[in-house]
Amino acid sequence: MAALISLLTDFGLSDTYVGQVKGAIAAVAPGVTVVDLTHDVPAQDVRTGAFLLMTSVEVFPAGTVHLAVVDPGVGSLRRAIAAKAARGDVFVGPDNSLLVPALAKLGGMVEAVDISADRNWGPLRSTTFHGRDLFAPVAARIATGAALAELGPHLEALDTSWALPEPAVEGDRICGEILHVDTYGNLVTNIPHTLLPARFSVTVGEAQIPDAPQSHYASVRPGELLAVTGSAGYLEISAREASASLLTQSRRGDPVIVQRTA
Amino acid sequence: MAALISLLTDFGLSDTYVGQVKGAIAAVAPGVTVVDLTHDVPAQDVRTGAFLLMTSVEVFPAGTVHLAVVDPGVGSLRRAIAAKAARGDVFVGPDNSLLVPALAKLGGMVEAVDISADRNWGPLRSTTFHGRDLFAPVAARIATGAALAELGPHLEALDTSWALPEPAVEGDRICGEILHVDTYGNLVTNIPHTLLPARFSVTVGEAQIPDAPQSHYASVRPGELLAVTGSAGYLEISAREASASLLTQSRRGDPVIVQRTA
Amino acid sequence: MAALISLLTDFGLSDTYVGQVKGAIAAVAPGVTVVDLTHDVPAQDVRTGAFLLMTSVEVFPAGTVHLAVVDPGVGSLRRAIAAKAARGDVFVGPDNSLLVPALAKLGGMVEAVDISADRNWGPLRSTTFHGRDLFAPVAARIATGAALAELGPHLEALDTSWALPEPAVEGDRICGEILHVDTYGNLVTNIPHTLLPARFSVTVGEAQIPDAPQSHYASVRPGELLAVTGSAGYLEISAREASASLLTQSRRGDPVIVQRTA
Repeated sequence: MAALISLLTDFGLSDTYVGQVKGAIAAVAPGVTVVDLTHDVPAQDVRTGAFLLMTSVEVFPAGTVHLAVVDPGVGSLRRAIAAKAARGDVFVGPDNSLLVPALAKLGGMVEAVDISADRNWGPLRSTTFHGRDLFAPVAARIATGAALAELGPHLEALDTSWALPEPAVEGDRICGEILHVDTYGNLVTNIPHTLLPARFSVTVGEAQIPDAPQSHYASVRPGELLAVTGSAGYLEISAREASASLLTQSRRGDPVIVQRTA
Repeated sequence: MAALISLLTDFGLSDTYVGQVKGAIAAVAPGVTVVDLTHDVPAQDVRTGAFLLMTSVEVFPAGTVHLAVVDPGVGSLRRAIAAKAARGDVFVGPDNSLLVPALAKLGGMVEAVDISADRNWGPLRSTTFHGRDLFAPVAARIATGAALAELGPHLEALDTSWALPEPAVEGDRICGEILHVDTYGNLVTNIPHTLLPARFSVTVGEAQIPDAPQSHYASVRPGELLAVTGSAGYLEISAREASASLLTQSRRGDPVIVQRTA
Repeated sequence: MAALISLLTDFGLSDTYVGQVKGAIAAVAPGVTVVDLTHDVPAQDVRTGAFLLMTSVEVFPAGTVHLAVVDPGVGSLRRAIAAKAARGDVFVGPDNSLLVPALAKLGGMVEAVDISADRNWGPLRSTTFHGRDLFAPVAARIATGAALAELGPHLEALDTSWALPEPAVEGDRICGEILHVDTYGNLVTNIPHTLLPARFSVTVGEAQIPDAPQSHYASVRPGELLAVTGSAGYLEISAREASASLLTQSRRGDPVIVQRTA
């Protein structure tokens, strides 16, 4: 089984921070494959990081190590953790809610440890770059076979202060919100497709989509809005060959209303 | 022979879509090397994607699998294909002209199949993200040895509706156009170096380069225009330590005239 | 020992230039791991490239091959080189000062050769893209075991015309400057932590930090400035959950004054 580490941060790609994390991984686990999820999480935006991580992990092979760092509390007392999901994947990062939705996505957390012990750090030890100095060496050791129990004391529960907002179901209505606007301007909501009725209308800002869901972009004309189950399994408002964000003047956090129509 | 997959999309790097494609590849072909060509093709711009793919593939080892997704027709009736070039490389992506110039570059197409059969899909199956759910698993299978004939029915010909524009040769004149403006502001034209006379002038917008070609950037003073055979084998208008696009106020699609001078 | 190549350029990621370099590496050294440091060095800014390279290499395993290309003189008479550091790492790139600070960081240069001989080039040979056509094949050969002496004639010394500026120490004062502004707006200075007194004040632009250093971001309130030893080992001016660059209206090259206070 080839070891695999996925990597999600808010470091951007203009600096060498991501490269340094990979150097630290290679120093411990030469030959391990590292896959970038994204490094463009808005700076210190834990909730967006949590959403992007949660919606990315399912397609990876079971047992992948996911290293995620969006860490406004670096250098403070927030814990550093490794946590295993029921599927066997292990998540490494700060204990600030970032990892929680992804753990739930893969069957829930089955084990967690505090990894901050001195012996887990690499040869460099800064107060501002735990991604390189602590999380990377730990992820690399796990990818090469270290058990969580070797890394530190057991934790009962994780910090969940930045939980993703849940949609509210009120009879025939679901009140959700936009969790993420992607590169194409698609509006990804927090409404899972499992909650959706067979036929419904969607209201977002001034716009309405009366006869949702559509099955394909090609179901509407270029420039028109449509509502589909997106690739992450959530209701998504898109526009054919256009940006739904621009068309509806909507952004992250705006409400989205689903109303059953049949 | 280590398996190698190149990857070109219009997904951008701000979302996790590229990472998810790599996760899907790793699930089928652990340990395969994936090389990013670019993910900044302008959204749904098949022609620019085709140009960037065509100008990138030659330097890869023969037999590379090239996965390319610029796919405005995802979810419609456009076919999904795998196509082999004479050099042995296999291209995987939508049948919308994207792969055609690169196939020609590597000696022409020798085999093509429709890959959309149910059995070729991965465990996730969205209507909007065939890059992850269909193209990635197929590319990974090919990289690990699957023959094209195993993947689906033979195709006689591909869709060529988005062909790259050819330059027109009229006596001592060649009328071409700018196919791509790169990061540095270099203007890459559609005029192959094999068409160029020994000495010539170049007209682009208001600017003229009377005594082309130059052999090096250092042939002119900083801030001056020059015309060279670019790294892709096409006539390229550059400026030493400056942007030819800014200096000439030119953009993609603008005409470029070459006139023989000797 | 798995071979490892790090890669730093000013090519950006919108074109396929970085991908082509990796293709050229894979053609010579299939299976070698390539780690991107960054490709967003400002175009042809050798000094910033040198700084980013210097501050990135320490965390990599000894013996890594570092391929770096920021090369305003491509096609001119500047030499192409490979140079070994005392730690065993080998640097490949143009002889324009880019590699010099990183060589010093890893113990100093112990061997250097001119690699421009015809036999070192790959199958493609442009005048404008030595990254792909010369540096990549050479780096790949070194990563798979080639000795420097096989690659070309010995060099006594490298070009050092773009040296990084040194801070000036005047009694209780250190006069340095900002070498780099990172993605978060942190101001990375050229003052190494080894020069810093136990307690000091920092002046940058109109702003003063009276009681430096702080040990953590969490030592100050959100929006406030602090001065820490950054992850690169240099004095760094940051702001908690904010941009020090915006708060102080400072940019690269601006002076930074450290005054001993105890």
